[in-house]
Amino acid sequence: MKTEVLRYLKEADGYLSGQELCERLGVSRTAVWKVIRQLTGEGYEIEAVRNRGYRLGGSDDVFQQTELQSVIRTKTVGQNLVFLEEVDSTNNRAKQLAEAGAPDGTLVIARQQSAGKGRRGKTWESPAAGGIWMSLLLRPAITPDRASMLTLVAALAVAEGIENTCGLSALIKWPNDLVLNKKKICGILTEMSAEIDCINHVVIGIGINVNIKELPDELKGVATSLYLETGKTFPRSLLTAAILQAWETCYELFLQTMDLSALLERYHQLLVNRDKEVRVLAPGGAYDGIARGVTATGELLVEKTDGTMTEVLSGEVSVRGIYDYA
Amino acid sequence: MKTEVLRYLKEADGYLSGQELCERLGVSRTAVWKVIRQLTGEGYEIEAVRNRGYRLGGSDDVFQQTELQSVIRTKTVGQNLVFLEEVDSTNNRAKQLAEAGAPDGTLVIARQQSAGKGRRGKTWESPAAGGIWMSLLLRPAITPDRASMLTLVAALAVAEGIENTCGLSALIKWPNDLVLNKKKICGILTEMSAEIDCINHVVIGIGINVNIKELPDELKGVATSLYLETGKTFPRSLLTAAILQAWETCYELFLQTMDLSALLERYHQLLVNRDKEVRVLAPGGAYDGIARGVTATGELLVEKTDGTMTEVLSGEVSVRGIYDYA
Repeated sequence: MKTEVLRYLKEADGYLSGQELCERLGVSRTAVWKVIRQLTGEGYEIEAVRNRGYRLGGSDDVFQQTELQSVIRTKTVGQNLVFLEEVDSTNNRAKQLAEAGAPDGTLVIARQQSAGKGRRGKTWESPAAGGIWMSLLLRPAITPDRASMLTLVAALAVAEGIENTCGLSALIKWPNDLVLNKKKICGILTEMSAEIDCINHVVIGIGINVNIKELPDELKGVATSLYLETGKTFPRSLLTAAILQAWETCYELFLQTMDLSALLERYHQLLVNRDKEVRVLAPGGAYDGIARGVTATGELLVEKTDGTMTEVLSGEVSVRGIYDYA
Repeated sequence: MKTEVLRYLKEADGYLSGQELCERLGVSRTAVWKVIRQLTGEGYEIEAVRNRGYRLGGSDDVFQQTELQSVIRTKTVGQNLVFLEEVDSTNNRAKQLAEAGAPDGTLVIARQQSAGKGRRGKTWESPAAGGIWMSLLLRPAITPDRASMLTLVAALAVAEGIENTCGLSALIKWPNDLVLNKKKICGILTEMSAEIDCINHVVIGIGINVNIKELPDELKGVATSLYLETGKTFPRSLLTAAILQAWETCYELFLQTMDLSALLERYHQLLVNRDKEVRVLAPGGAYDGIARGVTATGELLVEKTDGTMTEVLSGEVSVRGIYDYA
């Protein structure tokens, strides 16, 4: 029935009333409404206006396996694509696939996550309609202590992808968020499985609020979406492909030196924390300072109030909320 | 039929002929032989002598869930006990259980591993009869860079357990093996799942050649078992319980300081490498030196030929084979 509803909407010249749809399909209003919701969940932009009916928007964001595959231009990452309607968490699925031997570069994307994961066991809201919820599976030949840098590489790739596809300047909140107009639009969760001295696999989870039209109340004010900031719908397939492309370029540069040295200049341009006040929650006690950049191995460089410079590992810091930035 | 064969053997005064067993059970010689093999696989010591038959040995090593549970005296580790007849790898199973939410201290033991794992994807021989193949699941509140020390803590616990139960002095070959009379009797494989700055879980796989009566040809000369070195059969349940007990004591000391400082003295007594020649295979090239001990964070202290001291991470070294030690 979904295909039929979609065809009627595409054929309609302007609005198509719910009543008309019910009659043509021989089903109830509720049934029609459910299908409409499924379609918006898949990224179709469907306007619903009281007393007029439904209308298919022009700038569809159809996010499907075949379409995504047709636009991915990478050599490795995403070539093995696992596109799911729903999953508990794309990171969990990617880890399971990794244990089962899935190759380097496997990409898991889900239209919906029932238990999206944030850092340290926090949940991550993943509404069906309009986000990109994906996880990259990597098997880099690097030591485990270097894996944390991959979060920074991924943040850079997401920022580049958004700029190239949407023309928007998202900035990086070290180490694992991206912000637009001071609100969070992307979070990154890097997990790894390792032995003492070698990595089994790394999974980089990336959640991006793209065409989300409404956020839960508790997130309003701290998070946003590309749609909410611009009023525009962006094609998730193209955005995903652009991020993968940027990732591949950045990742190759990373692997050459096994650090961020070739990426630092661009990273600093995008670093929202740069020259801003931060509060470092060190195990020995909190202190304030000014973030001056990151090191080639990904630590945040913080100038303390006494003028001395420290290097902060992500494990030792909570940077002051982005809403403090003027 | 296994239970019946066992009862007949226990009731028999001396040897019981295979013919007799066949007649009592109404089965073929092959069927009897298969059951005998199952029982020896479970740790029963059954002597088979041509023209006389089978005899149950006195010092049974019965390794079963209920018996093991009855001798474990720990507070946490092993209280959730998963005892399996066969598994691909206890580490893999422990990791799966960890992802599914199994608690800190879960212990996975298998009588047989079909794909036992060594370091860096190597295989590990796990014959059914006579080994302890187990994995501890831990959820320590430490940063990922400290996880490598847990291998050293585990090595210490295994050495203590063997000494307390068997009266044998196994020594530690840094970082993850134990040796007896210069041959390997235990290997440890630590794996972790982590975010950038916190651990999801650690799995410590421990394989011990206890009552193994014959090793594959390719391992003879480099590996051995407690049985092969002493001619005695040791009760694996008691040995496992003693290792868990020693582990719990050592682990508590580790967690107090989050390093090895409280364990160093004992560790150094058991370190087979101490004051011995080692070859360090550093990324920049190999060099020789004398191992002088380990640091409080688990690095091997190596005195180079020019007299300077270096700290070697496990990721940067292959220590020269134990057979080089005089």
